[in-house]
Order: sequence, then structure tokens, then C-alpha cells
Amino acid sequence: MGIITISREFGSGGRELGKRLADELGYSYYDKEIVTAIAEQHKLDEHYVSYALEGGSFRNFPVHFGRTFSYSPTLMATEAKLFAEQNRLIKEFAAEGNCVIVGRAADVILREHRPFNIFVYADMASKVCRCQERAPEDEQLSAKQMERQIKRIDADRRKYHGIISDIPWGDRRGYHLCINTTDRDIKTMVPIVADYIRLWFEERGE
Amino acid sequence: MGIITISREFGSGGRELGKRLADELGYSYYDKEIVTAIAEQHKLDEHYVSYALEGGSFRNFPVHFGRTFSYSPTLMATEAKLFAEQNRLIKEFAAEGNCVIVGRAADVILREHRPFNIFVYADMASKVCRCQERAPEDEQLSAKQMERQIKRIDADRRKYHGIISDIPWGDRRGYHLCINTTDRDIKTMVPIVADYIRLWFEERGE
Repeated sequence: MGIITISREFGSGGRELGKRLADELGYSYYDKEIVTAIAEQHKLDEHYVSYALEGGSFRNFPVHFGRTFSYSPTLMATEAKLFAEQNRLIKEFAAEGNCVIVGRAADVILREHRPFNIFVYADMASKVCRCQERAPEDEQLSAKQMERQIKRIDADRRKYHGIISDIPWGDRRGYHLCINTTDRDIKTMVPIVADYIRLWFEERGE
Repeated sequence: MGIITISREFGSGGRELGKRLADELGYSYYDKEIVTAIAEQHKLDEHYVSYALEGGSFRNFPVHFGRTFSYSPTLMATEAKLFAEQNRLIKEFAAEGNCVIVGRAADVILREHRPFNIFVYADMASKVCRCQERAPEDEQLSAKQMERQIKRIDADRRKYHGIISDIPWGDRRGYHLCINTTDRDIKTMVPIVADYIRLWFEERGE
């Protein structure tokens, strides 16, 4: 069949949906695996790679990344390499066939592969609640702190996406299906979403 | 179960999806029926009612409808009455139970009924193609003309929605599911979308 990409608001359950969809369809699943592979290959700390690739570095950037060099050129060169490496890996995974890739702007990177693109989102209260349920007891943030974190992470995602695509992150036009997970149980919706995707690939003869 | 609202870009097949969903679920279906009822009741021409209610009248309005009265007060009073009547009818239909309502900002009007809100959209080329297939042979527009018409109608819908809701028309946050129908066969996706909605109502105990 093909390639599925999941873009998601932080705390919307997008990663869970991606993992369960991969299990349901018998597809490979890539998310943090990409970070681990890059960290190993470049002998870098996994946390640093994750921070850099998940948009942390953009926080210090003006919007026109690539034109402005007020930032340390060496660090920037390293990060540019990490992104290049991430893109190469994403394309490699896609070439191997059926897979679900979560985040990392894979919807844009793999445009030529014609993936099925999903955007997962939810109301803020629902996202805060999901994040709090997920956090270990000794790492609990207040609802207010959690909301700030969610907004910051999503702003980073939006910024990275904006650099490599004309269609804004989360804009329906960039996706085949946008799923609101507010107060939803992800598990029960998986077989139905999988049916929807199977039909989509079928209609394309893929 | 409940109430389903369909908002849609012109030419995206949203009306077909709504009609077929209603058939699949055994729900009532309301679209032009609302215009007909109002026209009969007010002894007005159906085309005029349709034009006024489908946003035609907003084309001459500044964005802050209701504050600016450069427009004929009598005509405006008539149109305000038509909108009030439309809203009353929508609520009446909703009170009768299971139904699908297409357009007319029913997602906003029926907010308190907690409807399942769908937004249907597609690429411009796909919408033009769908409209051309649907048009009678003697009413064919060129692709360019059709594109202009689609943009105009959607701009009217966006404007009307913007008057009564804080969430912009077509913004994912206002909907439970956003479906991209580009190059899709509406008919085959209906049973799957119906399953998705059934589960949503079930999880709410409705």
C-alpha cells in the first residue's frame, strides 16, 4: 500500500494514533527511531539531536532561516547537517515501503511519494489532560505550565514546517484527513481510520 | 444518536456526502428544504431567499454587518428576518432528532446541541472538475470562470460564518473531522465516515 504521515498538535494523541495505525495495518513505525539513528551515526547525545530536530533551535531563529546568520555558523552547520540526515533517513524508510512516520515534516519531505497525510488536533483542555495523564508523577506540571509548553512546542513545529512548505502547519489543505481527538479514546477509532486509509490507497491502485 | 452538520467548500462534494450519510444512517436530511420552507412561509421567490441566505447579500456588506447601515434599511430588515427564520427552522429540525444539515452555519447555530461537525474540502482542480461534471450541458462555465465562482461563493460562506462565530470558517478547530475529497469517490467513503460518527455518538452515550 503506502506511506502514512502523522502531523499533530502536542498532546493530541497523534503519536498513539500513529503507533496503533502501524500495528493495525502491519506497517513499520518511525518516530524517535530517527533521532536514535542520527545520534548513533554522528556520535551525538540523543537529547541534543532531539532538541535540535524537534525545532528547539528555531526558537532563536528569525523566520527567514537560511538568510540570516546572526547565529553561530558552526552550530548552524551542525544542525543543518542533522536536518539533511533526517530527511535522508525519512526518504530511506519511505523507499522500504509501508510505514507510518510521525512528525518531522515527513508530509512535506515525502511529497513525491504521495503519502496519506493526517493531522491530529484537540482542544487545549483535552491536550493538557492527556499530557498530565501521561507524565510520570515526579514530572507533573500545572495545567498553566503544561499549556505554555504545548504552545511552545507547537510554535516550533509550525516554524519548521513554515520554512520548508508553502502550506502552513495544520492548514487542512496539506492533509487528507484532519482528526479532532478532543475527549476521544484513540484506540477505538483506529480500525475505522485504518479502513479509511485502506480505501484511499485502493482507489489509487496502490 | 444525534445531529450532524456539514460545512463544505463549493464543489467539494459536501452535499453529496451529507445526503448519502443521511441515507446510510437513516437520518433526516436538510439543505434546500430550509429555503423552500422560508420562501413559502414569507411568500417570497425561492431564488431570492436562496440568494439572500447563501451569503449573496453580504457581498455588498462591510465585514461589520449590523453596525454599518449604508445599505437599504428595509431590505436589510427583510434579510435579517430571513436569517432569524432560518435559524429558528434549523433549531426546530434539530429538536426533532437525528438529522444531517448541510451548510447554513448549522455548526454554530446548533452549538448547544453538540452536533458532530464535518468540514469537506478539496483542491481547486478537483472542485472545478466536480462542478463541470455536475453542470447541465447548456450551463457550462470555463475552468477559469468556475474557479472564480467557487472562490466567490466560498468567500460569502466565510463572511457569514465570521459574523456569527469566533472560529473562522474552515478552521479545523470548529470541526470534529475535516475530509479532503480531492479525486475521491464520495459514495465509497460513506460507510466508513458513518462508522466514525456512530462511534463518536456511542462514546458520548448518545
